[in-house]
Amino acid sequence: MTTTTPPAGYTFDDTAPPPSPVGLEDLERLKASVLFGADDAAALAMAGDVLEDQVTDVLDTWYGFVGSHPHLVASFAGPDGEPVQAYLDAVYQRFGRWILDTCRRPYDERWLAYQHEIGLRHTPEKKNRTDGVDAAPVVPLRYLIAFIFPITATMRPFLERKGHPAADVDRMYAAWCKSVTMQVALWARPYAVQDW
Amino acid sequence: MTTTTPPAGYTFDDTAPPPSPVGLEDLERLKASVLFGADDAAALAMAGDVLEDQVTDVLDTWYGFVGSHPHLVASFAGPDGEPVQAYLDAVYQRFGRWILDTCRRPYDERWLAYQHEIGLRHTPEKKNRTDGVDAAPVVPLRYLIAFIFPITATMRPFLERKGHPAADVDRMYAAWCKSVTMQVALWARPYAVQDW
Repeated sequence: MTTTTPPAGYTFDDTAPPPSPVGLEDLERLKASVLFGADDAAALAMAGDVLEDQVTDVLDTWYGFVGSHPHLVASFAGPDGEPVQAYLDAVYQRFGRWILDTCRRPYDERWLAYQHEIGLRHTPEKKNRTDGVDAAPVVPLRYLIAFIFPITATMRPFLERKGHPAADVDRMYAAWCKSVTMQVALWARPYAVQDW
Repeated sequence: MTTTTPPAGYTFDDTAPPPSPVGLEDLERLKASVLFGADDAAALAMAGDVLEDQVTDVLDTWYGFVGSHPHLVASFAGPDGEPVQAYLDAVYQRFGRWILDTCRRPYDERWLAYQHEIGLRHTPEKKNRTDGVDAAPVVPLRYLIAFIFPITATMRPFLERKGHPAADVDRMYAAWCKSVTMQVALWARPYAVQDW
């Protein structure tokens, strides 16, 4: 996959994106809650280099997992119950960007703004709109949370593949787990605004 | 800590507990989403034996973590902003039971019913009521999700402590991570009933 042309619907670098209701102080508290520190940012930068040419393999692993479970594919299905291929493809491209963004982008206000956008795109407020599709109206929150496990556990072999010492793989893997958990917590906001 | 006398407010074994709105089919889908299978149940049974006499140490680690972060202790704080000690103590006892229940209880309808109860006890619907305290009305969903990381990562050294082969520790640790992620997904239900 190319990482130079922005995928359709990838609005991270838009001029003046709508800001997140979550501020930098909230983010600091969330980072502390998953023990995410400067070492983790450095480990993710390393992971970005490790993963850069493996993004397609990672995505294929995840799509294979989703594709083998009807209750997970259902989030991509139209009214006829069949997965909408154009939707799967568009998400695939953005999901690839997300892997590298998780590793390489600073976790700042712009990042928070795009996290907010990603969260909304899982919920009735904005799902399907980016890609102009008529798929299921929401990704159920329980599967968003459950997905933390496969999306972290499957990452380890990819982090090992470039021959880094075990201690570095451990650091990259832990940082990946922390960041994914934190991002799912951010994406959960629109599901539970009041009690988030 | 004793594990023979049921702690106050521990209603797992009540006669005819209110059933969970989540059924066994939903649970199977959730298990599949975190790749939880029979091997994991067996690994957790092993973990139960490893952890049985370390429950207090595990809890002290977690309480130390929560206690060192004002935004996490806040869930235990009363109107004066001070943590309610009786509440911390009561949760401590039930939390210890929860560790062993995660390892040893069958994940059946009774378990689902208690998961439902645990979820409600984090939200305005039932928080504080079990212990008759006047603490914060909700555990924010974001911290419930974020807590997946510390509550899993900190477990590994305890699983290693009894000299099991690395492969067994890996199995116990993976099973623990899967179960905790799945349980947090279950506890998230009252936050997002419609879109859960």
